[in-house]
Order: sequence, then structure tokens, then C-alpha cells
Amino acid sequence: MKILRIEHLGLACRSADQAAAFWSGALGLPVVDRETLPEMKLKVVKVQAGGSVLELLEPMEGEQVISKFLTSRGEGVHHVCFEVEDIREAARELRARGHVPLWEEPKAGAGGKWVNFLRPKDAFGVLVELNQAPGPAPV
Amino acid sequence: MKILRIEHLGLACRSADQAAAFWSGALGLPVVDRETLPEMKLKVVKVQAGGSVLELLEPMEGEQVISKFLTSRGEGVHHVCFEVEDIREAARELRARGHVPLWEEPKAGAGGKWVNFLRPKDAFGVLVELNQAPGPAPV
Repeated sequence: MKILRIEHLGLACRSADQAAAFWSGALGLPVVDRETLPEMKLKVVKVQAGGSVLELLEPMEGEQVISKFLTSRGEGVHHVCFEVEDIREAARELRARGHVPLWEEPKAGAGGKWVNFLRPKDAFGVLVELNQAPGPAPV
Repeated sequence: MKILRIEHLGLACRSADQAAAFWSGALGLPVVDRETLPEMKLKVVKVQAGGSVLELLEPMEGEQVISKFLTSRGEGVHHVCFEVEDIREAARELRARGHVPLWEEPKAGAGGKWVNFLRPKDAFGVLVELNQAPGPAPV
């Protein structure tokens, strides 16, 4: 498989606005997106760091994943996303090497990207997201 | 200040070789360096991910920082390093905005880079390393 770059880091935070005031205000990283994802119950602010993005993830009422992370570990790096050229090929190669992606097939994520994950227990403690740039459904 | 990119992620691991077998063997990221840093009591394997590097950090006998992290949190992302154009200017700007870097002056780190840090409690849970490419001592 071909990994192209660290596409983004997902940072769990209690207040995306306060975190953005730090990453953007203090470190000078430009805010490139602010959005609310009702289906994921997340408020997301994205700041640009060179060719990568920091996604500041704030759970809304009733959210489970980031909330649980904040409760058990506090604020910090929640996941690391690598952009791959071909997400299905990546999953095939991972399975062949004994690493089982979270989903059998990639799912369409935010921005039309195709995404899949490797669990931290299968990736030396790192929740690994793999994504592929938007385009026709991978075959 | 001008942040150029995510220069590297520091990943705490119990065995840098086993972690490298995953990141390189399973994910295909090329190993670009293997070194032992006796003064830091660390074994380090570096793999390239696009324009960024993953530093796989394995503590040796008597090491304190990564060991403590592994004991309290397990394997995973230990720090995020951003390359800045001018590390002294970055520290000045951070101080002016109420964020105190770990050191008064940057220190010369591995590869002749100038480095400084922001503590996780000052950076929304992220241990932030700032570095500047090798060159004459910054003034």
C-alpha cells in the first residue's frame, strides 16, 4: 500500500473553540473549517499545519466515543489519520498480514472521503484512521 | 510564528523493532533511521510517512520519561513535533500570549535541530515539541 501523508490528527477536547484559540491564536495555525456533525454528535474545528490538519473534536450532548476518551484519558491525541492511495488495497494488504481493519468495507466519511480504522490494540497503541481522497466508490 | 509542518510524531513503544515491523512491514512506511541515544537512554527507529516521520521510542534500562508514559498510559502517541521557521521567535510569541515553553532557551537536539516544548497542560493535552532545522545557533 502507499501512504501519502499524515492527513490529520484527531484531538479530543472539551471545547473546540477554546482549543482553536490556542492552536490558531497562540500557534498561528489557520482555521480552515468549523462544522457541526449532528449524526456524530461532534463539533469540529479544523486548523491547518503544513500539509496536515488538526481536527479539534468536541463531543456534544449524548456523544459516546470522544466523551469516553476524555473521561478516561483527558484531552489529547485521539487518532492519527494517514491518507492512502487505495483504501481497499490497503485493507487487503493489512488483512493478509494479520491486521484486521475495523470495517470489512470502507465507509464514506466527512467530505466524501473513504475511511477505515485500525484499533489501537492492533497498532501499537495508536488508533489509526486510513482515508482516501473523495472520488467514485472504490472497487 | 510560522509553523511549516508536522515534523514528526513521537510514539512510545515497548519494542521499537516490533513497532517498526508494524509501521514498516504492515503499513509500508520506509525505515529511514535506527539509532541508540545513550544520553537519553532511548532506542529510536524512524519511519517516513509522507513529509512527516514517526519516531518509535523505546526506553532502555533506567530511562524515565517514556517509561513513565508507558506505565501510566501504555503505548501510543507521546508527543507531536511541529517544525517552525524561527524557534526563538516562536517562544517569544508564545510567552507574550501566556504560554510558557519548557525551556527559557531552545536546546540543540538530535540531528542538530533546535528544540523546545510546550507542556500538555498548556496545550490542551498535547505534549508539543517545536523544532527548527539545523543551522547556526539562533540569535
